[in-house]
Amino acid sequence: MAAKRPSVKDVAALAGVAVGTVSNVLNRPDIVAEPTRRAVEEAIAALGFTRNESARQLRAGASRSLAMVVMDVANPFFTDLYTGAEAFALERGFSIQLGNSGNDPERERQQLAAFEQQRVRGMLLAPIGVAGGSVERLRERGMPTVLVDRVASDVEACSVAVDDVEGGRLAVAHLIDGGHQRIAFVGGPAELQQIRDRLAGSRRAVADAPRPVELSVVDTATLGARDGREAAERLLALPAGERPTAVFAANDLLALGLLQGFVTAGLRVPDDVAIVGYDDIDFAATAAVPLSAVRQPRREIGYSAGELLFREIEDLDAGATHVHQHVRFVPELIVRRSSAPAAVSAQ
Amino acid sequence: MAAKRPSVKDVAALAGVAVGTVSNVLNRPDIVAEPTRRAVEEAIAALGFTRNESARQLRAGASRSLAMVVMDVANPFFTDLYTGAEAFALERGFSIQLGNSGNDPERERQQLAAFEQQRVRGMLLAPIGVAGGSVERLRERGMPTVLVDRVASDVEACSVAVDDVEGGRLAVAHLIDGGHQRIAFVGGPAELQQIRDRLAGSRRAVADAPRPVELSVVDTATLGARDGREAAERLLALPAGERPTAVFAANDLLALGLLQGFVTAGLRVPDDVAIVGYDDIDFAATAAVPLSAVRQPRREIGYSAGELLFREIEDLDAGATHVHQHVRFVPELIVRRSSAPAAVSAQ
Repeated sequence: MAAKRPSVKDVAALAGVAVGTVSNVLNRPDIVAEPTRRAVEEAIAALGFTRNESARQLRAGASRSLAMVVMDVANPFFTDLYTGAEAFALERGFSIQLGNSGNDPERERQQLAAFEQQRVRGMLLAPIGVAGGSVERLRERGMPTVLVDRVASDVEACSVAVDDVEGGRLAVAHLIDGGHQRIAFVGGPAELQQIRDRLAGSRRAVADAPRPVELSVVDTATLGARDGREAAERLLALPAGERPTAVFAANDLLALGLLQGFVTAGLRVPDDVAIVGYDDIDFAATAAVPLSAVRQPRREIGYSAGELLFREIEDLDAGATHVHQHVRFVPELIVRRSSAPAAVSAQ
Repeated sequence: MAAKRPSVKDVAALAGVAVGTVSNVLNRPDIVAEPTRRAVEEAIAALGFTRNESARQLRAGASRSLAMVVMDVANPFFTDLYTGAEAFALERGFSIQLGNSGNDPERERQQLAAFEQQRVRGMLLAPIGVAGGSVERLRERGMPTVLVDRVASDVEACSVAVDDVEGGRLAVAHLIDGGHQRIAFVGGPAELQQIRDRLAGSRRAVADAPRPVELSVVDTATLGARDGREAAERLLALPAGERPTAVFAANDLLALGLLQGFVTAGLRVPDDVAIVGYDDIDFAATAAVPLSAVRQPRREIGYSAGELLFREIEDLDAGATHVHQHVRFVPELIVRRSSAPAAVSAQ
């Protein structure tokens, strides 16, 4: 039998640092303070520890694949998340595969199980409901998992999300600034965390308004363009005097469906009814009436999720304690014609 | 050791039919002639062959996953193909995972290798270039593979595609009917079979025209909206008297980019320039000017590809000879405002 080769733990013990610090020196030396880095490098030299060994551990029996499971592959928001994560994976020589849960918890479980069976190296999950159970089961079996588009408030996991309360506030404050006093929030299902947060932000904007504003809620079954068209029908059934003059849609597909429904019925957007969407998918700008939207940095979210996943994989491989991180991006409002005040919409 | 259980081959020998016929009786009895079916069923009864055995063979050591690799996951055309294939997979209790090649042959190979390593049960491939080598390698290793959105003319594989020559002909004949005499074909890369076919169809329409029509070709690097905007710039740089009055874009993303480019420059669509796209993705109908497009039955193509893949898997499991099938759908032209004659566009 060959002599036992020095491990990351041996290096950490000699350098007097945590195992995670050694992992950092090996993988992200730029984030380690200079004296610590030098101590670790000296320990590495003294023990004859080789980087190859670590790289070999990383690969041992492990595939070069990551996986991502999303709620709706037909929504460009999610394929943008995927291409962001893919950009990161490719930089590291990994490939990444995508699974659709189609808003169905059973299919979400099926996709996660399939990827687990396929022994991917780690997973990114944009979950439908409370993801706690699934993520915990995956971690017990040694599968690093990062939540995407979801704050991991009660789940032990890294997460990357956008501040959806602030996003909702931005959208509705903008409509209130435009003079609207009857505003509808269109979105669902109501249990979805993103929906709850965007609605909470909307209510906050109403509470902060300088004059009374009426906020009605139109619940939708899912977040597709068809749900948007159905919501438009429900709003069109109201007497004109009671109908909201502005709609904040919880995502862009809903907003595009609403726009289609209103325009088909002969309403002018934004003159008769203003619309603000959410996500700012590429198709928002090319819509019949270019769509105002709360922009989520979609590719950056995916890329960042890939980074967090890789750190967890590296810590796992190094036997280091992993501390979950939560990255939260700040959304930005993009104003286009669908909600522009008269002066702008006349252009 | 237990006595050898009767196999599909034993049944075939006793019934005097091919092994594939037994597989058909087991899996698709509706397509087998009544007398043959009865002969096979009698042989099954005589030998005590059980359907369970066959089902067990199908599952033995095999995953319940299929895979699909596409050229551009950010193009809704491909996610529609995927959701069609997914609908079929779910009916059979399978899941299906998606990989993006991003128009890069090296990434295509990487995705196929990853799925192969993950031991999916079969693959659907919407390939970038000539897929022959990849598909052959996969088959040698026992991986059934069906080509999607590509006719398998020189590749030994099942395939599902749309008659793109006819699609191109439909689009350009419609523009010629509208009175256009200077028409641009926008699309690329030129090596892509779909591009070649749609251009060939365009030329056929020009050859059949009742009067001289000038068809120019604007080559693009890929098929994204950005390429469309760049193509619009090139067309806008031409003197107005030489500029095409109509554009046939090889897909809808290009068409949406062209539309954006023209409208931004102050041109009216369809009055100054008419546009016809290809695919008829959902966003075509919701565009700034609703987009005419050659419709591909996207979900049906995906579903049909799933069916062909399953038949190949079943034949393989039954030890039966597999005969490759080629399904070709007929495209349909959907006329909307972007190419409507004056009377319609005034609506």
